[in-house]
Amino acid sequence: MNPNSICSNLSVAADGRTLLFAGHSATQLVEKYGSGLYVMDEARIRKNARVYVDAMREFFGEGSCPLFASKACSFTRMYKIVEQEGMGVDVVSCGELYTAKNAGFPMEKIYFHGNLKTDEDLRYAIGCGVGCIIADCREEVDAIDRIAEELGVRQRMMLRLTPGVDPHTYEAVATGKVDCKFGFAIENGMALEIFLHTLKKEHVDLCGFHCHVGSMVFDSDVYIRTAQIMLDFIAQVHTDYGFVTRELDIGGGYGVRYLADDPTIDIRANIAQVADEMKRMTAERNIPMPLVHMEPGRSIVADAGVTLYTVGAVKTIPGYKTYVCVDGGMGDNPRYALYRSPYTVVAADKLHEECDMLCDLAGRCCESGDVLQEGIYLPHSLERGDLVAVLTTGAYNYSMASNYNRYPRFPVIMVDGENDYVAVRRESFADIVLNDQ
Amino acid sequence: MNPNSICSNLSVAADGRTLLFAGHSATQLVEKYGSGLYVMDEARIRKNARVYVDAMREFFGEGSCPLFASKACSFTRMYKIVEQEGMGVDVVSCGELYTAKNAGFPMEKIYFHGNLKTDEDLRYAIGCGVGCIIADCREEVDAIDRIAEELGVRQRMMLRLTPGVDPHTYEAVATGKVDCKFGFAIENGMALEIFLHTLKKEHVDLCGFHCHVGSMVFDSDVYIRTAQIMLDFIAQVHTDYGFVTRELDIGGGYGVRYLADDPTIDIRANIAQVADEMKRMTAERNIPMPLVHMEPGRSIVADAGVTLYTVGAVKTIPGYKTYVCVDGGMGDNPRYALYRSPYTVVAADKLHEECDMLCDLAGRCCESGDVLQEGIYLPHSLERGDLVAVLTTGAYNYSMASNYNRYPRFPVIMVDGENDYVAVRRESFADIVLNDQ
Repeated sequence: MNPNSICSNLSVAADGRTLLFAGHSATQLVEKYGSGLYVMDEARIRKNARVYVDAMREFFGEGSCPLFASKACSFTRMYKIVEQEGMGVDVVSCGELYTAKNAGFPMEKIYFHGNLKTDEDLRYAIGCGVGCIIADCREEVDAIDRIAEELGVRQRMMLRLTPGVDPHTYEAVATGKVDCKFGFAIENGMALEIFLHTLKKEHVDLCGFHCHVGSMVFDSDVYIRTAQIMLDFIAQVHTDYGFVTRELDIGGGYGVRYLADDPTIDIRANIAQVADEMKRMTAERNIPMPLVHMEPGRSIVADAGVTLYTVGAVKTIPGYKTYVCVDGGMGDNPRYALYRSPYTVVAADKLHEECDMLCDLAGRCCESGDVLQEGIYLPHSLERGDLVAVLTTGAYNYSMASNYNRYPRFPVIMVDGENDYVAVRRESFADIVLNDQ
Repeated sequence: MNPNSICSNLSVAADGRTLLFAGHSATQLVEKYGSGLYVMDEARIRKNARVYVDAMREFFGEGSCPLFASKACSFTRMYKIVEQEGMGVDVVSCGELYTAKNAGFPMEKIYFHGNLKTDEDLRYAIGCGVGCIIADCREEVDAIDRIAEELGVRQRMMLRLTPGVDPHTYEAVATGKVDCKFGFAIENGMALEIFLHTLKKEHVDLCGFHCHVGSMVFDSDVYIRTAQIMLDFIAQVHTDYGFVTRELDIGGGYGVRYLADDPTIDIRANIAQVADEMKRMTAERNIPMPLVHMEPGRSIVADAGVTLYTVGAVKTIPGYKTYVCVDGGMGDNPRYALYRSPYTVVAADKLHEECDMLCDLAGRCCESGDVLQEGIYLPHSLERGDLVAVLTTGAYNYSMASNYNRYPRFPVIMVDGENDYVAVRRESFADIVLNDQ
């Protein structure tokens, strides 16, 4: 197959057989940095970020900007890259906040999310001067107010609302429905109740509302419907309580292409369309247009990453199946085990050969469920020592990695034009026992 | 509920409301070590280990012993405890081998498993003097022979065979079926073929055969059927090739009680029964009785562990559901997200209250799928600050933990009689960025 059909940063080397990722040979990367390997394409991250940054500034106006949903891919260097491109960030824990801080990310552009923040979390975040906290439950509103008072500040805050939109994506990533651990539902009055509760808090500066209807969205209808519900609510609190919503965060981000037949989306055109509709809707409702944020994560990093593995065994069980076993698995990519997520797999040093062998790509964890992909086709000449690349792994692979079976986590190698560098070092055995007493 | 119905190391404090784990107050443990927390009961680990050690020695004879399947729970202290109790260990990676070595575990009692060992792995393990390597594919047999030659040793080795027994447990942990990434199937001739291939290798000392038909086995039938198939194969190679099998590793281990209505199993009696049957079968086949190994992991550590969490929010969505959100989740226990694994959950500081609230126990990861348990009952007075314990978490919780959402991993606190101590320190934010460049 032609890997270019997945993403334009993938091509075939002059030898006709080796995968080039952002112009870098998969074989040479593994020779230099070892196997398995996360490789990320810095130029692609920047390009993906700029699409959102430019479109949001142009169509929503100055001050509206995308927040990088850093849970998709969180390490120090990532925050530096997205900051340089003009994004804010969405962090979901103090660990992400600490990492952003470690990268020197400006605190005022950090939005602190998550369905449960402890008092300790809030004390740390408010103490750091985090820009905005998105409260997800009544307990948090009360705790933010109390801790802000303790620390002598007035904390900028949003409320997370659930507009009840099912984005028809995977259930596991559909988080805007009413029955959900996140946020306050609009339709049953919870949103209005918490809004009124929050207004009474002296140490809280309620700047607006957040929602998130899911990731892997492929058209603008979901955002337009969501915006409509949110703007109805914003109009209601404007009319009834004179509340001016300064910021509206519509969450999410657009889908990415894991497989060659996944749709391609024009993000810029989609953002323009959402902005047009929102301007029309705010005018209709006679409310000022708030600053708008979106929270792309996957669509910033997914196609900026590939994972390179070395084949260790090809095991054919006559009458059943062939297993291609690689030096990685659910430890570095648990998404197939968790969600049956599809990925495109290529033989990174045998791209010239026909993919005529039906097989499963098995991981090396000592568990039957450790499979990276089932029912795929690879060349039947594959053997121990060959390279396999799983494409579009820049999102939720490194960030979900574990030491299951006590395998050290892969390094993250960044390629950038002619250069390549280590963004996250390979874990050592010594790192793994670091906290053992 | 009475937590004692799950395991005898659980009880209720004199105040009538606080969970005692091996006599230690859940509340005091959290006050001392913070929340969330893995707590493990050293005496219970030792007791569980001794059941296997004593029964295997008594019924199979001196030299037969259980190997702790350390992937269930791997950190330095664990290897010391099981070594003191007379177990060998099963490691599935060089990371586990390194940890066992770090604990001073005797190399000759370490069995190195896994469906894919790279040349680098084998060079490390053989260089360490690992006792036995279980080869899982032809590529490994060849690599072991080649690397043993390079290092000037003759490496003791077993072959992993798949007897084709479906243990009727969860598919994800059923690994003895023919269609499986592990081992060599007996029924289709792959086992005989690799046996003959291995016999030609000069730098390999083939001491026997391994199989593993799955975990969570609740009676001896599975092992007896498995032993029968393995002994038929052993008899065949004895008759046809004069090969004497010195060791037979029948894998697995018995099931544990996650829920109050799970069966209780008499492991000693079951081992006695398997031993009786195997003695009868070897006599019938006129072959010497090999040394026998089993590989319990879960049944050594599962009920020796609980996880303590603090409630951060209780969110009731009228007409739908109540979510009890705790300061942990799929990062410290991904087993519900992966397998829908059942666990018993108790309100660790409100054991006196009626469990009258139907709810989901939600984790704090920013993902709808981060649920620790669905449709359980807890007291409806639960509120922020209360403690919740998930029971029987000693197996595959710490070992599968990740930093997803960049949460630091929980510490492992060991309680032992009157004492308590840190076996694995709580991860810090600095640990999380340790390898960031």
